Amino acid sequence: MAVPKASDVLASELRERILSGEFAEDTPLPPERDLVSQTQMSRTTVREALRILEVQGLVRIKAGRAGGTFVQRPSQDSVATSISLLIRGRQLRLADLLETREAIEPFCARLAAQNRTDEDLAVLDAANKALATNDDNLTNFLQANVDWHVGVAAASHNELLIAFMSALSKAIYTATENEAFVDDEVRSVTAKAHKSITSAIRERDPEAAVRRMNRHVHSYAKAVLEVEEREKIAVDDE
Amino acid sequence: MAVPKASDVLASELRERILSGEFAEDTPLPPERDLVSQTQMSRTTVREALRILEVQGLVRIKAGRAGGTFVQRPSQDSVATSISLLIRGRQLRLADLLETREAIEPFCARLAAQNRTDEDLAVLDAANKALATNDDNLTNFLQANVDWHVGVAAASHNELLIAFMSALSKAIYTATENEAFVDDEVRSVTAKAHKSITSAIRERDPEAAVRRMNRHVHSYAKAVLEVEEREKIAVDDE
Repeated sequence: MAVPKASDVLASELRERILSGEFAEDTPLPPERDLVSQTQMSRTTVREALRILEVQGLVRIKAGRAGGTFVQRPSQDSVATSISLLIRGRQLRLADLLETREAIEPFCARLAAQNRTDEDLAVLDAANKALATNDDNLTNFLQANVDWHVGVAAASHNELLIAFMSALSKAIYTATENEAFVDDEVRSVTAKAHKSITSAIRERDPEAAVRRMNRHVHSYAKAVLEVEEREKIAVDDE
Repeated sequence: MAVPKASDVLASELRERILSGEFAEDTPLPPERDLVSQTQMSRTTVREALRILEVQGLVRIKAGRAGGTFVQRPSQDSVATSISLLIRGRQLRLADLLETREAIEPFCARLAAQNRTDEDLAVLDAANKALATNDDNLTNFLQANVDWHVGVAAASHNELLIAFMSALSKAIYTATENEAFVDDEVRSVTAKAHKSITSAIRERDPEAAVRRMNRHVHSYAKAVLEVEEREKIAVDDE
């Protein structure tokens, strides 16, 4: 029989009060000593419960004189962290990541064409500029690439899609941090595709945005997987 | 200046060793007392580090004589938990969830038509049967509905899409647990759509699977949002 741990019980109670809005964002939780006397639990247990909430991104714990435990709304970061753990820990194939991106991103492009603001466009334009100027440095290219893809998701104004795409983009960045994946052709094709999709988003043309994004993510996936295949064969041949 | 906490430092070190495969699945971590003597950290710190890994789904801690801390591969559950926290804590709109499903699920149906096994089909058939027989009980209907949608994702054999869809389905289940959302028409339209999509998956026809799933999730989303609109107006009128 599984007996729940005291710290888990306290963590869930506090979690419910945070999620329900009873404890509002940025307000401090009761001090540790009050939680100890209210719950009759040990100081170690109370501290453990607070650490659990911190790991889940529901509070931040500040040390020092103005310190305390402050309520935080859960963010996309904790979703991104859990997805990264899944990807690394289960060694998901790069093909799975690219496939998932093919599922999500054309839809993001459609919503972006419908919902984009001028600020969203400015982010995409900046990423396009960075992509065009940094044609020799792999890290800069990959960062500009991620910025643009996350920028399209942000322009969708759907918070869940933004969370999924941020996590996915980071993982794809890590998996493709390899000179062999990104040759001159990939760079120039990518820059061109990003520009033409940005135009469709700017002109509020959802159908063109979907169509072009579909083509872009599909051909990028194909190019990456072909290189992966080639690299594997090269290694096998040694 | 932020000084990292000792328990975080230990947790990340152990996390890396788990994710890299150095500590294999199901093997026990070194006992608490060994970690204490190896790291020169306090027992409370070591225990806190292990609890952090437990919350992240990377170990399970068993009490008792055969107890210990056992390595676990990160699972879809921890992704689903973090997504649920995001949805509840930021009060994401139901429209966002339904929109995200519209992005992901047609693609899952395509992959399912390509990759499904006979076992996958058996799961879909069982869910279709449950949906047809339980036409009076809301909970049974919603459960059969979730089982079918998660079943389609499982048949895609893409672990990341499975994780996304499991989290999403649970959240949509909770948000639509309301008699008003699910009237007789929704039930019969849903049963019919599930059957015809299942046929396309059975016959390995990706194009038909995508097209039918697209229509299904889009019209379900529309129906749910219309009811939501109506309900809100009804409340306002009181």
